Amino acid sequence: MATKQPSVAEDSVARTLDIVGDRWSFLILREAFFGVKRFEALQANLGIATNVLSQRLRKLTAAGVFHRAPDPEDGRKRIYRLTEQGRDLYGVCLSLMAWGDRWLADAEGPPLVLTHRNCGAPMQPVVVCSECGEPLQAREVRYRLRDAKAR
Amino acid sequence: MATKQPSVAEDSVARTLDIVGDRWSFLILREAFFGVKRFEALQANLGIATNVLSQRLRKLTAAGVFHRAPDPEDGRKRIYRLTEQGRDLYGVCLSLMAWGDRWLADAEGPPLVLTHRNCGAPMQPVVVCSECGEPLQAREVRYRLRDAKAR
Repeated sequence: MATKQPSVAEDSVARTLDIVGDRWSFLILREAFFGVKRFEALQANLGIATNVLSQRLRKLTAAGVFHRAPDPEDGRKRIYRLTEQGRDLYGVCLSLMAWGDRWLADAEGPPLVLTHRNCGAPMQPVVVCSECGEPLQAREVRYRLRDAKAR
Repeated sequence: MATKQPSVAEDSVARTLDIVGDRWSFLILREAFFGVKRFEALQANLGIATNVLSQRLRKLTAAGVFHRAPDPEDGRKRIYRLTEQGRDLYGVCLSLMAWGDRWLADAEGPPLVLTHRNCGAPMQPVVVCSECGEPLQAREVRYRLRDAKAR
């Protein structure tokens, strides 16, 4: 395996982390995936300082993760809805949550059970290959730039 | 959908983010998944300050993500190998990378092509339900604590 990845991968990862690579941004996203849309609710659930929450929401909105719109219940206020780009982070957030539940839960702390509404089964999120459906392991994945040779 | 998730989920996510919820930790993990094991190589690839890299590696090792061992090529040095717990973060890292490639790549920047060695096909990582294999959407997932009612 190459010991250095193609530069576009560096760019994509570094750019992603510029947007969501901090604790508060992930926690705000987690709340959004639980359906929280209002500033006051985000603040209450997270115990985050007003100025920090404002800054993160501005950044996530500017980056295209949230769409800011008038609150239908109070036109003077704004709500934050995940865009398609933001919703596309669900797999990342769910995988992070599941990892923490597998490896960091207290002995007495019950693990979180996720249920998939579509099939009704208790389940785990799994990251798989879009083509063969098998779970992905680092050693089984090759990376190349489009129009470049495989490495 | 509930607007507040069970507390164990908060704990798992918050604890996970305490370990990997910063830009450098993710970038170190990315290098590790590309096969980089040596301090000097991590430093050269990332352009990270020595003290910051030392601190992050100490933290990731203490958290069980890396195992520190003598370098087989130079017993005075140490290498950092991903533990099973660390390797289990691959899906998170790959999903982050793929998201950045989908949403943040330059117009002129060619997207990264991932190939799965097992099936040989160019592919995307997809987060699916372990039971039915369908891609997971936020609105289709329910959360409950073990021994608690669904919500």
